[in-house]
Amino acid sequence: MSSTTDYAISLADVEAAAKRISGFVHRTPVLTSHSLDAMATAAGNGDSKCLFFKCENLQKVGAFKYRGALNAVKKFLQEKKEKREERDTIFVTHSSGNHAQALALAARDADCKAVIIMPNNAPSVKQNAVQSYGAQVVLCAPTNEARQQAADEMVEATGAHFVHSSNDPDVMSGQGTVALELLDQVKHEYGVTLDAIIVPIGGAGLCSGVAMAAKSVQPGIKVFAVEPTGAADAYNCFQKRQLMGHTSPVNTVADGLRTTLGDNNWPIVRDFVDDILLVSDDEIVSAMKLIWERMKLVVEPSGAVATAAVLANKLSAGINNVGIVFSGGNVDLEKLPW
Amino acid sequence: MSSTTDYAISLADVEAAAKRISGFVHRTPVLTSHSLDAMATAAGNGDSKCLFFKCENLQKVGAFKYRGALNAVKKFLQEKKEKREERDTIFVTHSSGNHAQALALAARDADCKAVIIMPNNAPSVKQNAVQSYGAQVVLCAPTNEARQQAADEMVEATGAHFVHSSNDPDVMSGQGTVALELLDQVKHEYGVTLDAIIVPIGGAGLCSGVAMAAKSVQPGIKVFAVEPTGAADAYNCFQKRQLMGHTSPVNTVADGLRTTLGDNNWPIVRDFVDDILLVSDDEIVSAMKLIWERMKLVVEPSGAVATAAVLANKLSAGINNVGIVFSGGNVDLEKLPW
Repeated sequence: MSSTTDYAISLADVEAAAKRISGFVHRTPVLTSHSLDAMATAAGNGDSKCLFFKCENLQKVGAFKYRGALNAVKKFLQEKKEKREERDTIFVTHSSGNHAQALALAARDADCKAVIIMPNNAPSVKQNAVQSYGAQVVLCAPTNEARQQAADEMVEATGAHFVHSSNDPDVMSGQGTVALELLDQVKHEYGVTLDAIIVPIGGAGLCSGVAMAAKSVQPGIKVFAVEPTGAADAYNCFQKRQLMGHTSPVNTVADGLRTTLGDNNWPIVRDFVDDILLVSDDEIVSAMKLIWERMKLVVEPSGAVATAAVLANKLSAGINNVGIVFSGGNVDLEKLPW
Repeated sequence: MSSTTDYAISLADVEAAAKRISGFVHRTPVLTSHSLDAMATAAGNGDSKCLFFKCENLQKVGAFKYRGALNAVKKFLQEKKEKREERDTIFVTHSSGNHAQALALAARDADCKAVIIMPNNAPSVKQNAVQSYGAQVVLCAPTNEARQQAADEMVEATGAHFVHSSNDPDVMSGQGTVALELLDQVKHEYGVTLDAIIVPIGGAGLCSGVAMAAKSVQPGIKVFAVEPTGAADAYNCFQKRQLMGHTSPVNTVADGLRTTLGDNNWPIVRDFVDDILLVSDDEIVSAMKLIWERMKLVVEPSGAVATAAVLANKLSAGINNVGIVFSGGNVDLEKLPW
């Protein structure tokens, strides 16, 4: 493992982010469930499991994404102030998911303008949600190339500040604050030290931030990332020790996890994550429904993958106290996957 | 208002209950929502509303009912021990709702047997849930008379201790602990003093306990109860100042609120509740869906009535900081009411 100075972010960045966004983000509760513990223990053939769920589905905009977006917005404005730049700031990103709403709200909270590039096939409910936070929606063709080009043009034309959903270091640092809170809450509210944290992995903003923070604060902790079999790019990167995109068509119910890794977060995933676990869509939907039924929490499919991995006995024995991140809860209640 | 000694419970009973069940019940979180505040404020024509939601849907068995059941079980066993009675204890109740599961779990937690009388048309999923907590299910004809008779016979034959779901004073005291926690959490976590607490009213176990506790701790606070128009027995009692049952056929989506008041809780409702508000099933279902969408919390129709009342502008102006009890979250995910 190289020295942390080689990486895009360090623990100090995550701690600075925590300070910057404190009081603006919800310190979301960490909840437990006897029945899920019992099921996870049974799935592990009796190896005791105590699960601690960090409820980022209860975060503003319904997902952890608000942390990273707000950190990026606040840090940029802070630096601009230090440079005494007078020009109005516009923030821009491309996203059809939770990051779109997160950046829109973060910009509004800072009295700034946001422009969100969305594919023209994005559901109108998502477009409306972004607009309801006061952001401007610009539609583009539904390809990665088209949306990056639209964003580049916007930056070129307006001097806007581009905030990538998962590969921006300030976003990664913001997401890492989830781990700082989780470790602290489990220790002080439950008197427990975690053996492992399990997070979903899509673009790896959350995963890289959490891995850097957790391993720096508590070097012995394990960090696992979970990915759907239908979008296994991070798994393939990890196996081949090489950054790469999708090698087969993407097909998963977990729409938040379809994105690919980037050059800033990949080295952290490679060096700080212990393993990447795969779960099927059936396992994801079962876990999601179980969380709704037993924990009374609305989590989206992407938010249920870590629980799915535990219930499918993907953890090795001896890992007993497990932190799980419920990453988001944005679901179309008219189209539930069961 | 008479002295509290005329009532079935006092603040001292609620405080004793809080001590008795502490560490066994979840101290459920109090959550807030900017978007629901904004909607409630708009509904009130700009009169500012800050809502503080006590999430008893996140309580064990998915409802506040566990508090009352556990208090009744623990208090009975305590008194039995003081009397040096050796006989095994059996707890019995009749319920097809959340109290059934609550008493089953409370008895199991105390290593005691529970027998739950259920109507023979109760969904098998509810019967199975009760059995999964180790209780014995005894089926009876689906009438109030039949279930009371079956319970009486069980008590007669086995010496079991009967715990009514809402009219048992120990149950009422247990439910009152919701108010003690809510007032304390809002004060210490948010620095706010509540103007009012709004609770659902069905059998009035929760309502009477909360009203007694809240008015005793903070005499100036308002307590409102909300009932579906399709099961308006409490509303009728309150209007006529007289305990009575249903005067018309019961028809509401809020199945937890179909029961009627009892002689122990009615005097408290009569003297300590400021008003009983009615909401339609449409208002209930809209509020329920909104809570799922915006707060990412699974609440059952009965748990959404207080929010429905606020969003339908049933509160008078000047009541700004409002505590709302999400009473439960037990819903059949295959049969959602939208």
